[in-house]
Amino acid sequence: MRRIFGRLTVAGVGLIGGSLARAARDAGLAAEVVGFGRTDANLRVAMERGLVDRVTQDPAEAAAGADAIVLATPIGACVAIAEAFRPHAGPGTLLTDVGSVKASLLTALEAVWSGVGPVVGAHPIAGSEASGAASARADLFRGHRCILTPTATTDRPALARVRALWEGVGARVEEMTPALHDELLARVSHAPHLVAYALARAVGEFTAGGRRAIDYAGSGLRDTTRIAGSPAGLWRDVALANAPAIRAALAELRAVLDEVEELIASRDGTSLEATLAAGREIRRRLGRSD
Amino acid sequence: MRRIFGRLTVAGVGLIGGSLARAARDAGLAAEVVGFGRTDANLRVAMERGLVDRVTQDPAEAAAGADAIVLATPIGACVAIAEAFRPHAGPGTLLTDVGSVKASLLTALEAVWSGVGPVVGAHPIAGSEASGAASARADLFRGHRCILTPTATTDRPALARVRALWEGVGARVEEMTPALHDELLARVSHAPHLVAYALARAVGEFTAGGRRAIDYAGSGLRDTTRIAGSPAGLWRDVALANAPAIRAALAELRAVLDEVEELIASRDGTSLEATLAAGREIRRRLGRSD
Repeated sequence: MRRIFGRLTVAGVGLIGGSLARAARDAGLAAEVVGFGRTDANLRVAMERGLVDRVTQDPAEAAAGADAIVLATPIGACVAIAEAFRPHAGPGTLLTDVGSVKASLLTALEAVWSGVGPVVGAHPIAGSEASGAASARADLFRGHRCILTPTATTDRPALARVRALWEGVGARVEEMTPALHDELLARVSHAPHLVAYALARAVGEFTAGGRRAIDYAGSGLRDTTRIAGSPAGLWRDVALANAPAIRAALAELRAVLDEVEELIASRDGTSLEATLAAGREIRRRLGRSD
Repeated sequence: MRRIFGRLTVAGVGLIGGSLARAARDAGLAAEVVGFGRTDANLRVAMERGLVDRVTQDPAEAAAGADAIVLATPIGACVAIAEAFRPHAGPGTLLTDVGSVKASLLTALEAVWSGVGPVVGAHPIAGSEASGAASARADLFRGHRCILTPTATTDRPALARVRALWEGVGARVEEMTPALHDELLARVSHAPHLVAYALARAVGEFTAGGRRAIDYAGSGLRDTTRIAGSPAGLWRDVALANAPAIRAALAELRAVLDEVEELIASRDGTSLEATLAAGREIRRRLGRSD
């Protein structure tokens, strides 16, 4: 046993929350894991799959007696849930999250949780376009990065406990500021998601000669737009919560696309090949798709 | 035996040419399959893997006695190879290709092959970012679309033979004009490739706080940029050969990205979610990645 927590409440037993809950149970990291959610059907799946020890739809029951609470809902719902938990949480209850955006969310959570207990931001870089308890799996985080985003005021013992949780489920933990996290993730995740949605929509609307373009899509477009299968509400929330960095990332992409288009227009094949080859070399460093 | 051709010469024994050669051999579609290429090492792999009956680096040997010739090199090399073959090709030799762009390429090939024999344009929608004889496989085209692009002047018996070749290796054959092909493929393939290269390059250049963004990439970015692993010279050629349709496709993508950015800037979460959900619905129709 490497128990870190007494009762661990996971709010949102979906792909991320459900996987964390199950992995924490399997590793004996908590005395009890409680799943909180809104949807009967999903909580039933979570119980059937052994993701949690028990489930509740009642914020009071979810918060009371919890040693630590993990917010694993879409980020747009986190603050309201923390507010619902607050009156029922015992003193010192640790609040942490798994959100894809950190700075604005943590500022809001620290305000809500002020006077209750420590707040630690975390973001496991794992997942897929799948969602719900049915897609959860205990090995989701194994070998993947989890970024913790302490600030100057973050409680150090709480940070150490959250680090132990993520290391306990196999993640490689790294720390950085919330703002730096948001700058980096805007480039590698947030903007690419918006591009995938936009690409799917642009292609989906195109017809010519009575034919729909998407009927001629190969595996290339399927891969390029795979992440556009993610829930739209989740990425709406991310886009609004990290707007400045995302807009900067999209501007950087547009600058490269401008260059590509200019080289096509001027028929400068040599420079065009060099530009594409630079992209290919970066892609090579990313390694194979999972 | 469903023999369609006597000697079939495949110029360019890479992923597409090598797979077609091997599949045609396996199905007994040709009396003999000859592989033509520039690179000793690749031709050796083609022989070792049984993709072809024999290989040559000599255009005269490749063209002489060929019943049909398939150009399966990058499209930028097709015209020069057809010119090299022309003096050695017997009367009536059928010339076909597998290029991702059809209108401009076919116009050029028909001019070079004028007075020799029929020309038929074909484009199998299959493949991956892999390249070379080592990546060829006989089942590459099975169940995938192959688009034939006859024009008003295309020889009908020659068209029927090329259809039989592709149906013989398992493809679902469809016919349309070269121009329509190029409009559709610009949307589902050409522009997405350029976006993938551009996205990889934009992300690859970003560093902050002493960290490289690409070190934080998850499976989402890997999938989104997978096709940027394709040879740069090949897509340079495609970009130049189908420039107007590709620029139109990129403009359509930019229009959707503009809309997304405006909705983020105005913090219109409802409309933003609707836009992303529309992309998700189109992605859902594309089905799973291979």
